[in-house]
Amino acid sequence: MSGFGARLRSAVAAHGRLCVGIDPHAALLDEWGLAFSAAGVREFGLRVVDAAAGRAAVVKPQVSFFEQHGAAGFAALEEVLAAARAAGLIAIADAKRGDIGTTMAAYATAWLTRGAPLEADALTVSPYLGVGPLRGTFALAREEGKGVFVLAATSNPDAVRLQAALAGHVTVAAAIAHEVASDNAAADDRADEWHDVGLVVGATVDRAAVGLADALLERTPVLAPGFGAQGARLVDIDRLYGAAAPHVLASASRSILAAGPGGLAAAIDAHRGELEDTLG
Amino acid sequence: MSGFGARLRSAVAAHGRLCVGIDPHAALLDEWGLAFSAAGVREFGLRVVDAAAGRAAVVKPQVSFFEQHGAAGFAALEEVLAAARAAGLIAIADAKRGDIGTTMAAYATAWLTRGAPLEADALTVSPYLGVGPLRGTFALAREEGKGVFVLAATSNPDAVRLQAALAGHVTVAAAIAHEVASDNAAADDRADEWHDVGLVVGATVDRAAVGLADALLERTPVLAPGFGAQGARLVDIDRLYGAAAPHVLASASRSILAAGPGGLAAAIDAHRGELEDTLG
Repeated sequence: MSGFGARLRSAVAAHGRLCVGIDPHAALLDEWGLAFSAAGVREFGLRVVDAAAGRAAVVKPQVSFFEQHGAAGFAALEEVLAAARAAGLIAIADAKRGDIGTTMAAYATAWLTRGAPLEADALTVSPYLGVGPLRGTFALAREEGKGVFVLAATSNPDAVRLQAALAGHVTVAAAIAHEVASDNAAADDRADEWHDVGLVVGATVDRAAVGLADALLERTPVLAPGFGAQGARLVDIDRLYGAAAPHVLASASRSILAAGPGGLAAAIDAHRGELEDTLG
Repeated sequence: MSGFGARLRSAVAAHGRLCVGIDPHAALLDEWGLAFSAAGVREFGLRVVDAAAGRAAVVKPQVSFFEQHGAAGFAALEEVLAAARAAGLIAIADAKRGDIGTTMAAYATAWLTRGAPLEADALTVSPYLGVGPLRGTFALAREEGKGVFVLAATSNPDAVRLQAALAGHVTVAAAIAHEVASDNAAADDRADEWHDVGLVVGATVDRAAVGLADALLERTPVLAPGFGAQGARLVDIDRLYGAAAPHVLASASRSILAAGPGGLAAAIDAHRGELEDTLG
């Protein structure tokens, strides 16, 4: 079984660095002519999967928009995740879960175990309780051929106070990145492969200010929100991420989904084209 | 409609400060003779609700142990939450959700809207992306007569590096508590009632070290993990929380649940008795 890093690298080589968000919020459902219901989010998700298959490497369902519809919403999400994986897409469940002990282990099992109802290829996690309690999730992910993206520096201005706070001589964001890098270094025995545990580093983040230098992101998958509606431009990806740019997933949601169901495929192609234009 | 703070104060006056965890993890299901399945977690949850009704003010389902069973697990959680609320218990969904914008709004709607499938009385949230993105959740909670508990200082040692990092002149935990206090002060017009937005402050936390003085917790509901299996003793609650102690919910899970289905009621009574002994 291939590790997540290796699978992601192959998928990006074949289809580029675009990550298509699946964000069926109320306003978009309405624009698409779909009901604000579990059936609506299911249909929305399946249409995005259809359009993304063969055109993008990665899709990212935003779990809250399914959770809003309760158990029926989760049943819809199970279908969307299964369809994405069956279509050869890498599915990142954007759930930002974070806890300790057996509680965190249950989240990891929920999303990263082969055969689980909510099986995804990777999960976003939140480190407010420290990186230590997430190490079991990293280990489970590696055993199952799955990936994890740990929130480090996000794209919203409100986050800076916490993420740039000083933990000793480094920022919180850098401390988290260091701990993830150590864990990856201890677990990975191949010097040339992408790691299985990545980071979330927003495209609007001042990386220098939070101490996330290129060296800290070496071979580390980076999930990058903040493109499109949030302000950063895809054509700037290489400037924004420097040496890390080849393993950055540029996540776009509203700028694709606003095209409506009939315009999705063209919008995905256009985003991918913009990203490809940036490569020398 | 009463606000959450007022409802919680009444419930605590009637039944004491014990919060009974509903944590149906694999090992406990096995001890209880229940299957590791959605049916198992449903049965487990309903039995705890039955035992807690009339004996405790608050129950706290740990969402991950339901999520682990996918959509079927959430259907079980819907039943457990409904049963708890029907029995007059205050149900805190321990989900530690945290995100920004419409994504966070969807989490808030999922758990804190009257009539939602997963309707709870309060939700735990995580501030890694800042307190700012949570303000909409606080506002929704107040409109709906619901509550929110924001993670501030947790009970696991791994968390100290982040939570005691310095955001300007205060720790991250204190900065969060200050922002919550300001939001509560701006929203609440009664000088004597408990606030609707509370904090999670673990019982094993060195409050002085993280800057969470009594004054910062005034009239603020505090959800306190860390009792029992995690090391703190219920008899020490007043010493640990000082002036805030009257509005601290002492959360206990393993130390109650390990009594098995037949011993739950007695274990809850014993915990409550220990807490009552501490009151002058």
